[in-house]
Amino acid sequence: MSVAAFIEKNKDRFLNELLDLLRIPSVSADPKFKNDVFAAAQFVKESLQKAGADVAEICETAGYPIVYGEKIIDSSLPTVLVYGHYDVQPADPYELWDSPPFEPVIKKTSIHPEGAIFARGSADDKGQFYMHIKAFEAMMASGELPCNIKFMIEGEEEVGSDNLDKFVLANKERLKSDVILISDTHMISMKDPSITVGLRGMAYMEVEVTGSNRDLHSGTYGGAVANPINVLCQMIASMKDENEHITIPGFYDKVQELTVQQRQRLNEAPFNLDEYKGKLDIADVHGEKGYTTIERVGIRPTLDVNGIWGGYTGEGAKTVLPSKAFAKISMRLVPDQDWHEIAQLFETHFKAIAPASVKVKVKAHHGGAPAVVSDSSVGYRAAEAAMEETFGKRPIPTREGGSIPIVALFQKELGSDPILFGFGLDTDALHSPNEHYGVKNYFIGIETIAAFFKHFRELSQQ
Amino acid sequence: MSVAAFIEKNKDRFLNELLDLLRIPSVSADPKFKNDVFAAAQFVKESLQKAGADVAEICETAGYPIVYGEKIIDSSLPTVLVYGHYDVQPADPYELWDSPPFEPVIKKTSIHPEGAIFARGSADDKGQFYMHIKAFEAMMASGELPCNIKFMIEGEEEVGSDNLDKFVLANKERLKSDVILISDTHMISMKDPSITVGLRGMAYMEVEVTGSNRDLHSGTYGGAVANPINVLCQMIASMKDENEHITIPGFYDKVQELTVQQRQRLNEAPFNLDEYKGKLDIADVHGEKGYTTIERVGIRPTLDVNGIWGGYTGEGAKTVLPSKAFAKISMRLVPDQDWHEIAQLFETHFKAIAPASVKVKVKAHHGGAPAVVSDSSVGYRAAEAAMEETFGKRPIPTREGGSIPIVALFQKELGSDPILFGFGLDTDALHSPNEHYGVKNYFIGIETIAAFFKHFRELSQQ
Repeated sequence: MSVAAFIEKNKDRFLNELLDLLRIPSVSADPKFKNDVFAAAQFVKESLQKAGADVAEICETAGYPIVYGEKIIDSSLPTVLVYGHYDVQPADPYELWDSPPFEPVIKKTSIHPEGAIFARGSADDKGQFYMHIKAFEAMMASGELPCNIKFMIEGEEEVGSDNLDKFVLANKERLKSDVILISDTHMISMKDPSITVGLRGMAYMEVEVTGSNRDLHSGTYGGAVANPINVLCQMIASMKDENEHITIPGFYDKVQELTVQQRQRLNEAPFNLDEYKGKLDIADVHGEKGYTTIERVGIRPTLDVNGIWGGYTGEGAKTVLPSKAFAKISMRLVPDQDWHEIAQLFETHFKAIAPASVKVKVKAHHGGAPAVVSDSSVGYRAAEAAMEETFGKRPIPTREGGSIPIVALFQKELGSDPILFGFGLDTDALHSPNEHYGVKNYFIGIETIAAFFKHFRELSQQ
Repeated sequence: MSVAAFIEKNKDRFLNELLDLLRIPSVSADPKFKNDVFAAAQFVKESLQKAGADVAEICETAGYPIVYGEKIIDSSLPTVLVYGHYDVQPADPYELWDSPPFEPVIKKTSIHPEGAIFARGSADDKGQFYMHIKAFEAMMASGELPCNIKFMIEGEEEVGSDNLDKFVLANKERLKSDVILISDTHMISMKDPSITVGLRGMAYMEVEVTGSNRDLHSGTYGGAVANPINVLCQMIASMKDENEHITIPGFYDKVQELTVQQRQRLNEAPFNLDEYKGKLDIADVHGEKGYTTIERVGIRPTLDVNGIWGGYTGEGAKTVLPSKAFAKISMRLVPDQDWHEIAQLFETHFKAIAPASVKVKVKAHHGGAPAVVSDSSVGYRAAEAAMEETFGKRPIPTREGGSIPIVALFQKELGSDPILFGFGLDTDALHSPNEHYGVKNYFIGIETIAAFFKHFRELSQQ
């Protein structure tokens, strides 16, 4: 039976297995889901075994385990390493989900007329890494596995992949491969397939501003004692100028400026500003002056407050002048910004601009390096050929605003260029309520991955 | 038995009754305490009956009831109306309390070496209005009630006294009095007694800023779509200039500027900046340029964020670009600012400064007028004499930063000047965790109130 026929025959099972995986609330950021994160690792291991892996192991780390699997058919053939993550973002705010985040349902949408799976992690990244296991199973079943295959599926991607570096460094030999496949990005659309060749890095900070040693009555003290919320707002606001340019000294020092030609090419990707605004229901976009939306997301760094809290946030009114205010602030970085350096610049600056009337604390949660990957490697050309085969159209190389910090790590430590082989769409509500992943995307992904193996072997042997 | 002897003899009971009242979590801002707020009203009614009131009624309103009580001994004698409130501020954040907020305990502190009652509402306002009921009881028991007395104790002071206006207007005849006593303010210290003659008004607003129609991935969209938290911070920051002067157009138009002499007199009140900073553990005060701390609190308006929230505020990190951000913002007002007008100016300005990339909503929670009361009326002189008798020192007239919006209402509708006869201290942590009220303050308050009645009758008859 051909790979395509096997996929067709096992469609329902392939889908139901993914739904089972999505039912496990493997939220790595929240310790209350600890057992579920471990359960997800177990699920991955068993899936690899069933698919035909010779090795499938749960590798302990200081945090959540990394699932390693492999099938070596012939050491003289090229080897493909698949990376993915079985942990998911927190699902809150729960009340904004139309159906419970860990009870997947399939519903049709205008963008996914054949249905999409609604669940936390459906696109990021369970639905996407699971395609590789199913493609592997299909190739095994059809007797057509053209390359050796290795899997490294981690459980801490959403909290900074803290233990992956150590694992990679300690297992360089075992992870040796000719190409790395990562499906954790999106493409432009089903009719405009694309492959991500640029990713932003990140430095994720948390700050605390303290005024007085206790909450105060805003009447008795208001106007005379620093209000840490007002101060925090002023500090945050001051970190961007009127052109939305970030004011942290040294922040842009290492930012690669693209040539006019490079920028022109970037802006040739299909993009409709009115559609973009319409989908988000915004009257206007908002960003750094002098750059297009594609550029703002692809080649420019950011500073975004991801969370803020302080004072009374319950019902009604409370006239409190709070003692503390907090914010989680992340910066997306572009080549060649170094996240350790940016985190340090942030901390120094944040402390420098704090007025004498408050105390501040700054902590770096995690970070990662930005990355650019080649669009002319054997791996890229194989991915291009595979997509052209299944989508009927040559994919466009794009730069995506998200971060997969381990891409730079893989480039440096494993010496091969990852292929960012994502099949989701940017409208799939990743990290948001009602995250979903197209059923059609799931199956075309499985097919395309199998096609990649065929082309990668062919091109490697040329 | 003299009033003083009766108080002395019943000290334990007077204290225990207050503790019982403090055990009722009558938080008016939070509907889940609804039954408790009603229970507190019932407690007040029964206390008035036991103390000797001829009338003690629970008067329904559209919200929480007003407890009315009276004892008319002779219609030719002067009448004192006591105002207070049996509702309390929300107690959260609970984790910052050293003991549960509704399980009062008495502990010694450096400022209260004879012990203070720690509980939500101990100072604001249960401990303070209850002194009047106990003084009334003591005067009744000793056969020495020198004036007629009326009580109006409400249950919505902490949420804006929404139904008090209507009650006052509908009961003008019944509330007729020669002076109004309100113990809901503080004095400088036990050795520097003071009487408040100025209060700030307030306009309490809530704002909502919406960016996109759903939470977004901060990688995919960050830098290109408005982040409502960043925007809210910018908007809040822009509402004050570098001198902490509020930038809302028209905001200061009606602010009464005091003369140099008036300001000098105000600054003669005992105040030690180092002690003030030490108690709050702040390296510096923070406020409008050109004004002292006493002036910033007493005669200048403010704009304080009382609460802010948006995005991910849980443990760890979440790279969300949120759809919405919120803030509760209150402005303390001074004569002759009108809160309705200020609320309108705020709303107009907030909408005007919102960038096109967001939508904003503004709502006014509640507000109240600022007030200044005479320091030469018969009532003020009687209060002065009473304090001099019990404290051994003539009280200083001060301007306090808090708001008791109904003071202006009473002046206008009932035609008599309220005496702001507070016995708490500004360190009592009103509206904060670990609110407390000195045991000594409680008893000296009861004694001073009884002395007031004697002096008020004497001075009224001169």
